[in-house]
Amino acid sequence: MSPQQLPAVAALGGGHGLAASLTALRRVTDRLTAIVTVADDGGSSGRLRDEFDCLPPGDLRMALAALCSDDQVGRTWADLLQARFTGEGPLSGHAIGNLLIAGLWQQLGDPVAALDMVGDLLRTRGRVLPMSSVPLEIEADVIGLDPLDPDELCTLTGQATVAKSRATVQSIRIVPERPPARPEVIAAIRGADSVVLGPGSWFTSVIPHLLVPELADAIVTTKAQRILVLNISSAAETDGFSASRHIELLAEHAPALRLDAVIADERFASTDPHLESFVASLGGRLVRADLAARDGTATHDVNRLAAAFSEIIGH
Amino acid sequence: MSPQQLPAVAALGGGHGLAASLTALRRVTDRLTAIVTVADDGGSSGRLRDEFDCLPPGDLRMALAALCSDDQVGRTWADLLQARFTGEGPLSGHAIGNLLIAGLWQQLGDPVAALDMVGDLLRTRGRVLPMSSVPLEIEADVIGLDPLDPDELCTLTGQATVAKSRATVQSIRIVPERPPARPEVIAAIRGADSVVLGPGSWFTSVIPHLLVPELADAIVTTKAQRILVLNISSAAETDGFSASRHIELLAEHAPALRLDAVIADERFASTDPHLESFVASLGGRLVRADLAARDGTATHDVNRLAAAFSEIIGH
Repeated sequence: MSPQQLPAVAALGGGHGLAASLTALRRVTDRLTAIVTVADDGGSSGRLRDEFDCLPPGDLRMALAALCSDDQVGRTWADLLQARFTGEGPLSGHAIGNLLIAGLWQQLGDPVAALDMVGDLLRTRGRVLPMSSVPLEIEADVIGLDPLDPDELCTLTGQATVAKSRATVQSIRIVPERPPARPEVIAAIRGADSVVLGPGSWFTSVIPHLLVPELADAIVTTKAQRILVLNISSAAETDGFSASRHIELLAEHAPALRLDAVIADERFASTDPHLESFVASLGGRLVRADLAARDGTATHDVNRLAAAFSEIIGH
Repeated sequence: MSPQQLPAVAALGGGHGLAASLTALRRVTDRLTAIVTVADDGGSSGRLRDEFDCLPPGDLRMALAALCSDDQVGRTWADLLQARFTGEGPLSGHAIGNLLIAGLWQQLGDPVAALDMVGDLLRTRGRVLPMSSVPLEIEADVIGLDPLDPDELCTLTGQATVAKSRATVQSIRIVPERPPARPEVIAAIRGADSVVLGPGSWFTSVIPHLLVPELADAIVTTKAQRILVLNISSAAETDGFSASRHIELLAEHAPALRLDAVIADERFASTDPHLESFVASLGGRLVRADLAARDGTATHDVNRLAAAFSEIIGH
């Protein structure tokens, strides 16, 4: 990175977790690329996938909204794209931005060109890209589905099903197994100064990126520093998992992965005596800070997260 | 009008007819206000009216597209907003722009603020306004519906029904009878140098403006010159009507209306020996020109129409 430029950062994830990291990262740099999961099959995105066999637009829309221009026009459009149709009719529940993105996809043919157009509309800081050119399905091996046989290994299919299940996920796969990645995505990871993974739903928003072969290869081989942001606590999909176990799951799905820094909330880190040495064994250092939102939810305070990023990513 | 400024023009109508007059007028001035019918109850607009009890967005969308910026970005967005979802699912047939406008309406509450936002997006030349703040229903008295009793007077309800009917329309009404007009619309007509009516579907896109009391009053009393553009020939709704009969229908629905100029295609005018004196009796002069599109359709060539406007509206 040249001394005049802000650092280039590629942020990988999906949903509210990625929106939080993007909101924090945009305070550190404007050279941002969001690389977004495309496995959602629930809600408005799932209905659009069913109707048009397109990428699920929801997580992409949320990332675009997080990067929208901080002026009145940008925020108004972002609010609009996030809003959902009300009522009981056929449009009810569809996010307006999802319809716009799906319409642009149908019209332009090229998913990235369409996202760039919405980015121009929102005057986004940075760019939003899909982690694969084709929609993905998530399959999870789980235990605990049958109370009478809690160790039985079962397979759940579909992100929405996996995210909602109370079973314990052991591992996940994506279908198709080797989906194509967009060249813009690979270029963004190779050209980045820092690559950020997480926070977010661990199995359905964080790990899937490591299962796209070209993407995993770029993450493993990039000269960028690799930063992992742990969740504030173990949440639905990883309920009861220690901080170390979260990281171990990444390593199980991508054995060649090395990490340069792991950002963990003070309180979550303090419950896991092995965390620091575990992070060191993967080549990284642990950055502990008080990161929890003050509203009591298990989400990041974006200002505190921005401070942690700033320390690691620097200028 | 000050000598430095281009003339201010308010163009009233709906559908393809209004899109043609706007496309022509934007070559003459950039001080344009489109005042658009909101009685459509068919197709994508009708479905959105049914679902959200909103104004029908279709004619407004078409007017916005006609006024979009003439650069690549403006045209790309205009094409997108005009495009319709394909397939057989619940979104099939909806114009993408209709969904965006309906979403903005739901979100912002104010129909005009939402249209201004889309206008900003398309970087339109001029402004697009609805002719009433509430959706309208069209009721038509027709004859010829029953082949056994061709003189029987029947009532048809709904713009789509009236537009498709092969019966002969005698007169139309709007429901509600005295809908509120937007103050921006009244101000645009009062402040205009020229007010343009037509071309378009005579009963469902041209006459309805004269049935909104505040709007009719503004049209009748404005100091602007009043210009009527006749269709290239008598079309579906007015099949077999002479040029004079078209004008007479306006007078029957708005007895106080005076006209300063009537623009008629040479060929259509030549079929009606009474046209010139009839126009004169309403206070106006007849402007005859070869205006028909060269593709053989009964539509205006927008360059020739622009030349006719330019002659009347001047600089």
